[in-house]
Amino acid sequence: MTIKDVARLSGVSASTVSRVLNNHPDVSESVREKVLQIIDELHYVPNNSARDLVRSGEDTVGVVVRGAENPFFTGLIRSVEQEIEKAGYAMVLHQIKSGDDELAAGAELARSKRLCGLIFLGGSFDYTADRTAALGIPFICCSYSNSFGTLEKSSYSSVSINDEEEARRAVKYLTDRGHQKIAVLLDSVNDHSVSELRYRGYCRALEEAGIDPDPDLTEETHVYDLPAAYEGMKRLIGRGKDFTAVFATADSFGIAALKALNEAGKKVPEECSVIAIDGIEMSRYSIPTLTTLVQPVEEMGRKAVNILMDVIEGKDRTAHVYVKTDLREGGTVKAI
Amino acid sequence: MTIKDVARLSGVSASTVSRVLNNHPDVSESVREKVLQIIDELHYVPNNSARDLVRSGEDTVGVVVRGAENPFFTGLIRSVEQEIEKAGYAMVLHQIKSGDDELAAGAELARSKRLCGLIFLGGSFDYTADRTAALGIPFICCSYSNSFGTLEKSSYSSVSINDEEEARRAVKYLTDRGHQKIAVLLDSVNDHSVSELRYRGYCRALEEAGIDPDPDLTEETHVYDLPAAYEGMKRLIGRGKDFTAVFATADSFGIAALKALNEAGKKVPEECSVIAIDGIEMSRYSIPTLTTLVQPVEEMGRKAVNILMDVIEGKDRTAHVYVKTDLREGGTVKAI
Repeated sequence: MTIKDVARLSGVSASTVSRVLNNHPDVSESVREKVLQIIDELHYVPNNSARDLVRSGEDTVGVVVRGAENPFFTGLIRSVEQEIEKAGYAMVLHQIKSGDDELAAGAELARSKRLCGLIFLGGSFDYTADRTAALGIPFICCSYSNSFGTLEKSSYSSVSINDEEEARRAVKYLTDRGHQKIAVLLDSVNDHSVSELRYRGYCRALEEAGIDPDPDLTEETHVYDLPAAYEGMKRLIGRGKDFTAVFATADSFGIAALKALNEAGKKVPEECSVIAIDGIEMSRYSIPTLTTLVQPVEEMGRKAVNILMDVIEGKDRTAHVYVKTDLREGGTVKAI
Repeated sequence: MTIKDVARLSGVSASTVSRVLNNHPDVSESVREKVLQIIDELHYVPNNSARDLVRSGEDTVGVVVRGAENPFFTGLIRSVEQEIEKAGYAMVLHQIKSGDDELAAGAELARSKRLCGLIFLGGSFDYTADRTAALGIPFICCSYSNSFGTLEKSSYSSVSINDEEEARRAVKYLTDRGHQKIAVLLDSVNDHSVSELRYRGYCRALEEAGIDPDPDLTEETHVYDLPAAYEGMKRLIGRGKDFTAVFATADSFGIAALKALNEAGKKVPEECSVIAIDGIEMSRYSIPTLTTLVQPVEEMGRKAVNILMDVIEGKDRTAHVYVKTDLREGGTVKAI
């Protein structure tokens, strides 16, 4: 039973059926009623997601998203979804909170849905073989790596940016433009996660430019959210220590930094430059537009699905891929 | 099997177990290993969401979120989740795209999980009895109403703001401050949805102030996203028709409007005021802070769960509740 069957029996086009299903206003009431009647008679379930929900078996891939409130995942979910569909597999999506255990959630999902593979969008960077054993099926870490873990490389796959290297690149962009006093606004310097890796890249870029990292210019929020980033930036400004640029380890931190700088009367980029990493949609609309290294979300989703499919279908071995960011030059960095 | 059992058998506190599960860095390696070993031995599944995933039956409430990319839902999901837990029920969360059919998804979910009730976060405003019959269980529309539909009031519940009235209030805030030439940036004037209701409120406020709506100052995007809102605002500015204020029917539209005005060299609020409705987190960090009517997301989530529970437990009948917004005075409106 497809949308075409409904269209044929209703005597309208498939796109009209689609408009009815999506409640578009530009369908006459009589056509709408006719189509809905046919749908009722046929017990047609138009919704892909709804179908996937009850489907399970060897052609189903699970996607576990950790931290659904993170806008970075929106585009990634879309990309993964499209690729899974294109590959002829079904998908079940499961969202958990950013503090939750994605491995436990993945193991449950694998068991209850009899999945053939798992894609983790976001997770911790320190897996051990003990902890992943419960999954029992091929999996890929998408958007993060296992830099602090002890997993055998051959036991899983990953696709992500090289967080340390990209952070180095962001900060080098500042040192290349004459900045010496560069503050860093981040979650934590030792969270064994993305923030620690990006902090390492920050330190490396400073070192390469012959600059000693200054603890007074390192501001940790210990929480990954906008209010914490905003308060952190206020503390940094309040300390009274001079700096000409800020490296924010995430776009949302960059947006919060712009706000705190603006409220302190510090003009961006004239008095302070800001650069970040991620490239979430909202940062295109900040004032000024945030200069940031944009993660290639589409490519990352596509590669994650392709690698996982090859492993599932026995065509290839596990793989570990770094994708590159694209620099988006906004209006928040100035040479000095 | 609870976190306390794991703590007791590991000889540590429950909060330490929690830290291990959440991969906090401040746990010694030996404690971490001990706790993980106990967890393995007990086959303990620590994750609520993971447990809920396979649970089903009379104590499970389904939550269908339409348009997960809409940041407005983030806080609402959190609130609903807390309240369901507090009420002693389990929750299954299902996210669909903004164009998808939430009723079809809800019906599938109700059947496959044998739910006792459904909460829809976002949906269309024009249900008919035919279309909701398939649900077969009590449901509540949370954050929207059925203003364009034909459902019997007694057959469902709803909790939302009064979109027309709140929009009227937002625009009255502008007319009270001397604005006469007020543009509106919105999705559509006749989408039979939130945007049409808020447009009605805009027209009413103008009418009450003795102002004729000007078609040249009405800008429809026909798509609900940031790029479309930004382009819409650029078109509005490009038309060259004079206006001193903009009513954006959503915060994200307001943020896009601020960006387009900034790029056109129009100072906010000196040369143009902007007001919106919603109160998403990001709009606190726009420059200037967006003046907006904040939807009481926590209250809305709490009321939705309470009303639904009362219906499920036979304590009360269906109910339809309007909650009120709170004006957040940012820096985007100026009296003229």
